[in-house]
Amino acid sequence: MEQFIALVQAYTALGVGIIIGLGAIGACIGIGIMGSKFLESAARQPELVPMLQGRMFLLAGLIDAAFLIGVAIAMFFAFANPLLSKLAH
Amino acid sequence: MEQFIALVQAYTALGVGIIIGLGAIGACIGIGIMGSKFLESAARQPELVPMLQGRMFLLAGLIDAAFLIGVAIAMFFAFANPLLSKLAH
Amino acid sequence: MEQFIALVQAYTALGVGIIIGLGAIGACIGIGIMGSKFLESAARQPELVPMLQGRMFLLAGLIDAAFLIGVAIAMFFAFANPLLSKLAH
Amino acid sequence: MEQFIALVQAYTALGVGIIIGLGAIGACIGIGIMGSKFLESAARQPELVPMLQGRMFLLAGLIDAAFLIGVAIAMFFAFANPLLSKLAH
Amino acid sequence: MEQFIALVQAYTALGVGIIIGLGAIGACIGIGIMGSKFLESAARQPELVPMLQGRMFLLAGLIDAAFLIGVAIAMFFAFANPLLSKLAH
Amino acid sequence: MEQFIALVQAYTALGVGIIIGLGAIGACIGIGIMGSKFLESAARQPELVPMLQGRMFLLAGLIDAAFLIGVAIAMFFAFANPLLSKLAH
Amino acid sequence: MEQFIALVQAYTALGVGIIIGLGAIGACIGIGIMGSKFLESAARQPELVPMLQGRMFLLAGLIDAAFLIGVAIAMFFAFANPLLSKLAH
Amino acid sequence: MEQFIALVQAYTALGVGIIIGLGAIGACIGIGIMGSKFLESAARQPELVPMLQGRMFLLAGLIDAAFLIGVAIAMFFAFANPLLSKLAH
Amino acid sequence: MEQFIALVQAYTALGVGIIIGLGAIGACIGIGIMGSKFLESAARQPELVPMLQGRMFLLAGLIDAAFLIGVAIAMFFAFANPLLSKLAH
Amino acid sequence: MEQFIALVQAYTALGVGIIIGLGAIGACIGIGIMGSKFLESAARQPELVPMLQGRMFLLAGLIDAAFLIGVAIAMFFAFANPLLSKLAH
Amino acid sequence: MEQFIALVQAYTALGVGIIIGLGAIGACIGIGIMGSKFLESAARQPELVPMLQGRMFLLAGLIDAAFLIGVAIAMFFAFANPLLSKLAH
Amino acid sequence: MEQFIALVQAYTALGVGIIIGLGAIGACIGIGIMGSKFLESAARQPELVPMLQGRMFLLAGLIDAAFLIGVAIAMFFAFANPLLSKLAH
Amino acid sequence: MEQFIALVQAYTALGVGIIIGLGAIGACIGIGIMGSKFLESAARQPELVPMLQGRMFLLAGLIDAAFLIGVAIAMFFAFANPLLSKLAH
Amino acid sequence: MEQFIALVQAYTALGVGIIIGLGAIGACIGIGIMGSKFLESAARQPELVPMLQGRMFLLAGLIDAAFLIGVAIAMFFAFANPLLSKLAH
Repeated sequence: MEQFIALVQAYTALGVGIIIGLGAIGACIGIGIMGSKFLESAARQPELVPMLQGRMFLLAGLIDAAFLIGVAIAMFFAFANPLLSKLAH
Repeated sequence: MEQFIALVQAYTALGVGIIIGLGAIGACIGIGIMGSKFLESAARQPELVPMLQGRMFLLAGLIDAAFLIGVAIAMFFAFANPLLSKLAH
Repeated sequence: MEQFIALVQAYTALGVGIIIGLGAIGACIGIGIMGSKFLESAARQPELVPMLQGRMFLLAGLIDAAFLIGVAIAMFFAFANPLLSKLAH
Repeated sequence: MEQFIALVQAYTALGVGIIIGLGAIGACIGIGIMGSKFLESAARQPELVPMLQGRMFLLAGLIDAAFLIGVAIAMFFAFANPLLSKLAH
Repeated sequence: MEQFIALVQAYTALGVGIIIGLGAIGACIGIGIMGSKFLESAARQPELVPMLQGRMFLLAGLIDAAFLIGVAIAMFFAFANPLLSKLAH
Repeated sequence: MEQFIALVQAYTALGVGIIIGLGAIGACIGIGIMGSKFLESAARQPELVPMLQGRMFLLAGLIDAAFLIGVAIAMFFAFANPLLSKLAH
Repeated sequence: MEQFIALVQAYTALGVGIIIGLGAIGACIGIGIMGSKFLESAARQPELVPMLQGRMFLLAGLIDAAFLIGVAIAMFFAFANPLLSKLAH
Repeated sequence: MEQFIALVQAYTALGVGIIIGLGAIGACIGIGIMGSKFLESAARQPELVPMLQGRMFLLAGLIDAAFLIGVAIAMFFAFANPLLSKLAH
Repeated sequence: MEQFIALVQAYTALGVGIIIGLGAIGACIGIGIMGSKFLESAARQPELVPMLQGRMFLLAGLIDAAFLIGVAIAMFFAFANPLLSKLAH
Repeated sequence: MEQFIALVQAYTALGVGIIIGLGAIGACIGIGIMGSKFLESAARQPELVPMLQGRMFLLAGLIDAAFLIGVAIAMFFAFANPLLSKLAH
Repeated sequence: MEQFIALVQAYTALGVGIIIGLGAIGACIGIGIMGSKFLESAARQPELVPMLQGRMFLLAGLIDAAFLIGVAIAMFFAFANPLLSKLAH
Repeated sequence: MEQFIALVQAYTALGVGIIIGLGAIGACIGIGIMGSKFLESAARQPELVPMLQGRMFLLAGLIDAAFLIGVAIAMFFAFANPLLSKLAH
Repeated sequence: MEQFIALVQAYTALGVGIIIGLGAIGACIGIGIMGSKFLESAARQPELVPMLQGRMFLLAGLIDAAFLIGVAIAMFFAFANPLLSKLAH
Repeated sequence: MEQFIALVQAYTALGVGIIIGLGAIGACIGIGIMGSKFLESAARQPELVPMLQGRMFLLAGLIDAAFLIGVAIAMFFAFANPLLSKLAH
């Protein structure tokens, strides 16, 4: 029984790495693209900075949301791997 | 019987990682591209921000929809893997 | 008999992951490209927003259609794998 | 006899995943490129929207055609795999 | 004898997947590029739409031709695999 | 003797898939690039359409030629694999 | 028991490397893109530097957040691998 | 003796596929690039079409030459594989 | 016991290489992009060099931070691999 | 002795495929780039066509030279593989 | 004991190659990008060369820093591999 | 003794293929880029063609030099493989 | 003992190839980018050539430095592989 | 003893191929980029050709230097592989 659990857990470790790694590179580059446009707009119209900053936080939240959903799912897999439930009955 | 379930579950773990990982990087970069255009438009015509913001949320919802559908399916596979039903009868 | 079913199901799990993962990244980036053009057009001609928004929903539906067809087929494979029918007779 | 059928079916599952996955990402991005040009044209000349929309549906149909042909063939392989006919006589 | 046929059929399944998958992504993106140029031209000179549309169908047919030739050959391989003829005598 | 023929035929199936698949994606994208330039030129100078169309067919024929040569060779390999002639004497 | 733990730990080491490596390259390039836009804006409007610098730190924090979340999770896996908990009962 | 010939022939099949496949995609895209420039030039100066067309055929011949040389060599390998001559003495 | 430690350590060596290698290429290119913008700004407005240089150091520090965090973690793994703690009890 | 010759010949077949395949795709695209510039120049200054055509043949010869040298060497390997000389004494 | 040390050392050799190789290509291209901008600025405003050169050395030092840190760590691994310390007790 | 020579010779065949193949594609594309610029310059200033042609031959020689050095070394390896000298004593 | 040294040395040979190969391609392209900018600046302001040439040599030295450091380390590994010191006691 | 030398020599052959192949493609493309800029500058200011040509040779020498260093090291490995010295005592 132990070796089957180890096999599933090892592949789960690889899957978790793929989820968080791809999500992190996506979030970093996505916020980088969006933020450089924000700085450009802020430098061109400084009187709009408070309004733009609020929207920028909204967008950063939306971008991070996809990353954080992936992280949450990965942590759930790590602590309570639902793929193992079929092996225990 | 146990080793066949373990084999299917291990490959399912890899498949789940591919679904969520690719979906997350797609959603992050997609919202990043769309959001940088939103900030540019907001800075050019500040009087249109409420109207544009509503549309931006619509689009962010549409982009996240594809990601969340993938997440939902992946979770379904994790908890009640339909691929195992053929092995139990 | 069981090991042959497990072999086909394991490869099917991988195939399902490829279908949904590639479809999700395609839909996210496709709607992102289309939506950034929609926001740009909406900011330039605010009086056309209702007309453009209807078309935008049409296009988002067309883009999501390909993704959802893939998802539907993948779910069908997961619940009633037609590739197994040849093994049961 | 069973193991040979399982071998062919497993590879067919992989082939079906490649067909539908590549087709879906192609259709999503193709319609995204075409649709962003449609929205741009519609915003520039709103009086031409009905004519352009008809053409846009034509093009979306042409783009989806290649995807749907691939889907149809993949489903045919899944239900009645012609590659197995040589193994049964 | 059976195992040799199964080996050839399994590799043929993979080859068929490569042919249709690569052909579908090529046709989708090719028509997408061509169609976005058609919409742009139609919006700029609406009086030329009937003439341009005929040419657009011609080009879509030429692009789909390569895809459909690949599909036809793949189906021929699936139903009557000529690679097996050498194994049967 | 049979297993050596099966080995060569299996690799030939893979080679045939590579030839037709790469040729099809090349032809689709090549005609797409060439055709979008044709539509642009036709929309700019409608009086030159008959002359341009003839040239466009010439070019499409030249592009498809490379694809069709590959297809012809692949079919020849499929029906009368010359690589097997060394194994039969 | 020991060999199953070693298997899971070895795959976890690979997963940790993927998380931190992809996160680091993403953060470096993301801040690089955003920072070059900051320097350009600062050189064009030196009187806005204090305001822009505050926003730049905000953005750098947001970009690093995704990287640091990945690092924190990776360290957690390294010290108290939750994937091993299923092997100990 | 037979198995060594089969090994060399199988690798030759793969090599032939690489030669013709890469050559075909190169020729298709190369003629596509060259032909789109030809159509553009022909539409701009219609009085030069006969002169340009002759040059275009020259160039298409030069591009196809590299492809056809590869095809000829591949066919030679298929019919009279010189790599086998060392095995027969 | 020794062979399990060796297995984990070998995979850790590969993981450490991925972390530092990807981080180094990211930091080099990131500073290169940012620095070329700094030199351009400095040449255009030489009176702003002291102010810009301070900001450039800030940004270089932020870019190197992600790289150095990865290096620190990699060194920690090398000296006191926390993944081995589970193997010792 | 025979199996060692077969091993070297099989790898040589793969090497020959790489040489001719990469050379052919390089020559096709290289002449395509050069030829599209030739057509553009010829259309702009038709009185210079004879002079330009001579130079174009020179360049096509230089580009094909690298490809043909590779072909010649590959044919030499195919007929008189110098790598086998060490095995025969 | 010896074979476990050899396994860890072999993987360390591969890791060291990845660190220095990726770092070197990153540093070369990073300095190349930055230096071409320096030469352009120097040619446009020759009176600023001493000031710009000082900054260029600063930036080259910052870019090389990441590369040299990687080299230093790689040499440390080569001479006193800390991953082996766990194998010696 | 024979099998060790065969092993080294087989890997040398692969290495020779990599050297000549990569060199050929590099030379073809390099001369293509350089030659298209030559034709453009020749068409703009026809009175400079003799001077430019001499320089073009110089550059083509420099580009081919790297390719031919690789070819020469590969031929040397093929005829008198220095890697075998260590095996003969 | 001998086989462990051979294993480490074989992997070191691969690592050395990666270091020098990646470094060489990076240095060649880096100097190519920088040098084309130098020639452009020299042709625009010939009176600045002596000053620019000195800076160009500085930059070439900086670019080659990273390559040569890698070469030096690789040679050190080749002659006195420090990874073997752990195997000798 | 012989089989260990053969193993190291085989991997060295692969490493030598990587060094020379990557170096050759880098040198060809690097000189191609630099040379096209030289021809452009020479055609624009023919009176500067002698000065520019000298600098072009300098740059070509610098670019080839990295390639030739790699070749020299590869030849040294081929004739007197220092990695074998550890196996002989």
